[in-house]
Amino acid sequence: MKAKKLNILFSSVGRRYSLIRSFKKAMNDLGVKGSIVGTDINPLSPGLSIVDSKYLVSRCTSPEFIDELKDICRKEDIQAIIPLIDTELLVLARHKDEFRDIGVEIIVSDEGVINICNDKITTYKYFRENNFPTPKVLDFDFTLENAEFPLFVKPANGHGSINTFKVNNLNELEFFKKYVKNPIIQEFINGTEYTLDIFADLKGRVLSVVPRIRLETRAGETNKGKTVKSEKLIKVGKDVVEKLGAIGPVTLQCFVNEKGVYIIEINPRFGGGVPLGIASGADYPKMLIKLLLNEQVLPILNEFKEDMYMLRYEDAIFIEDNQ
Amino acid sequence: MKAKKLNILFSSVGRRYSLIRSFKKAMNDLGVKGSIVGTDINPLSPGLSIVDSKYLVSRCTSPEFIDELKDICRKEDIQAIIPLIDTELLVLARHKDEFRDIGVEIIVSDEGVINICNDKITTYKYFRENNFPTPKVLDFDFTLENAEFPLFVKPANGHGSINTFKVNNLNELEFFKKYVKNPIIQEFINGTEYTLDIFADLKGRVLSVVPRIRLETRAGETNKGKTVKSEKLIKVGKDVVEKLGAIGPVTLQCFVNEKGVYIIEINPRFGGGVPLGIASGADYPKMLIKLLLNEQVLPILNEFKEDMYMLRYEDAIFIEDNQ
Repeated sequence: MKAKKLNILFSSVGRRYSLIRSFKKAMNDLGVKGSIVGTDINPLSPGLSIVDSKYLVSRCTSPEFIDELKDICRKEDIQAIIPLIDTELLVLARHKDEFRDIGVEIIVSDEGVINICNDKITTYKYFRENNFPTPKVLDFDFTLENAEFPLFVKPANGHGSINTFKVNNLNELEFFKKYVKNPIIQEFINGTEYTLDIFADLKGRVLSVVPRIRLETRAGETNKGKTVKSEKLIKVGKDVVEKLGAIGPVTLQCFVNEKGVYIIEINPRFGGGVPLGIASGADYPKMLIKLLLNEQVLPILNEFKEDMYMLRYEDAIFIEDNQ
Repeated sequence: MKAKKLNILFSSVGRRYSLIRSFKKAMNDLGVKGSIVGTDINPLSPGLSIVDSKYLVSRCTSPEFIDELKDICRKEDIQAIIPLIDTELLVLARHKDEFRDIGVEIIVSDEGVINICNDKITTYKYFRENNFPTPKVLDFDFTLENAEFPLFVKPANGHGSINTFKVNNLNELEFFKKYVKNPIIQEFINGTEYTLDIFADLKGRVLSVVPRIRLETRAGETNKGKTVKSEKLIKVGKDVVEKLGAIGPVTLQCFVNEKGVYIIEINPRFGGGVPLGIASGADYPKMLIKLLLNEQVLPILNEFKEDMYMLRYEDAIFIEDNQ
């Protein structure tokens, strides 16, 4: 039997120390040889300290970015690239074929999928057209004249809960719709916030959905969370991702109250809180490594530990300037 | 020689996993026997998973809190309490003598010091009265008529950068001074943000000051930081804390630009980013343990590694419901 070998490149490792540690563990558990390579634009990204080889690259919007990545792929004999931040998804989706030509599979959905997810208005329209439940939006479902407060204002292409405001009256609305650049104004949903860690194979068949309650958030990310075995939410996650045609990791945010589920956004990449899904038994790193090695991976939609809590704290890497 | 023994209680361990780990290491390095006890109001605090014994207590504002703490102190033979969050400092300062009567030293400054630090207006007045440099404040140093934009609006008793806004014009100011509850309106300082980790002995003599640049913040805390050996800032830290008469750990925030230093706030407790000061060589846990064992600790004001970087990432504890 041939020894299994796989070199993976994570573009934009950033703060994803724990996720990359999971991939190292998965490689080790599966007896797969190979190295984990990481890139970032910032030499001070903590994720760079856990990879086997690290590279600084240009910003993904710069014309050099793709060539730099290709050079690293050739030099390190990379078989797969896993992007981790929203901003690079589109550019990588556009160059998927070129990379495939040099033997590198980019784990990213197609351009059309990324375009739907990148802007909250296009996401909204997609949900409405496909009858997925989502909060009402000003100028589509209601007008200022019949608006009911509270409402929620956020940037259409924002992230991390930055510049998001609950508005309680017309005065606040008039202010914040000018204050927030490119705003989307929605009904405010009073409910429990869930994140779904979803994983589809490279043909778009959903293999796993782990819903988790966001018990506490911090800087827009789950700070405390708990897995929940909700058949309804698992079905929503599977349906949305298979309809959308996304591949690989997807993160879906929604609110749930007595009236139902309201999908807020969808990100076709690993979410910040995915370590909980992994810890609960949905070992996405292992599944992805097997897929890349052309091994069979069967759906395990409901197979994860229920009521598992993730309690986050901050750890740090300390480096001296002369290192 | 008698074996050294010390039982320490951390009230409100919260997310302070790394800090408590440093105390465990310090006890071990110094050959001190004893246990680390942690309390919190939230069973889901990750800090509770690293202490030797954990207790859930009432909120510090509740009438039961002090008696609950005393019971734990007696049961666990505690010699020192180290509070970690702002809200409990005042109540603990008020009960310092009572705890001393049962053999427990609370590492907290006196009530007068806490009162100065707890509210940004009293802090401001204290800085002005003692000629410490601080940003100008509306109604004290300037009026709305001669205000120069941008300004900065924040809650007088806020924390973690919540509800803080840079305001660029009169329209935004009029809005945010109503939107933010109990606001303080300051000149906006364009400069580099520093945090000083300061440590004074139990008589108020400053033993160490480690200034660190806040290269990046997240939810109001340092996410990336770097130590800086600035004699000017070390002097500011020493002067402020000795004048104030604080004891134990103190965190001071300031901005520095070409015109000078502007102190923003001071918190008489360990700051969230103190692991960098500790990693750079200012081992506050060791110093505090020695002080509690009545060993001599000499000032090491300038003794820490310069240009040491702290790069934070999120780690997590995973627990199952039935644990």
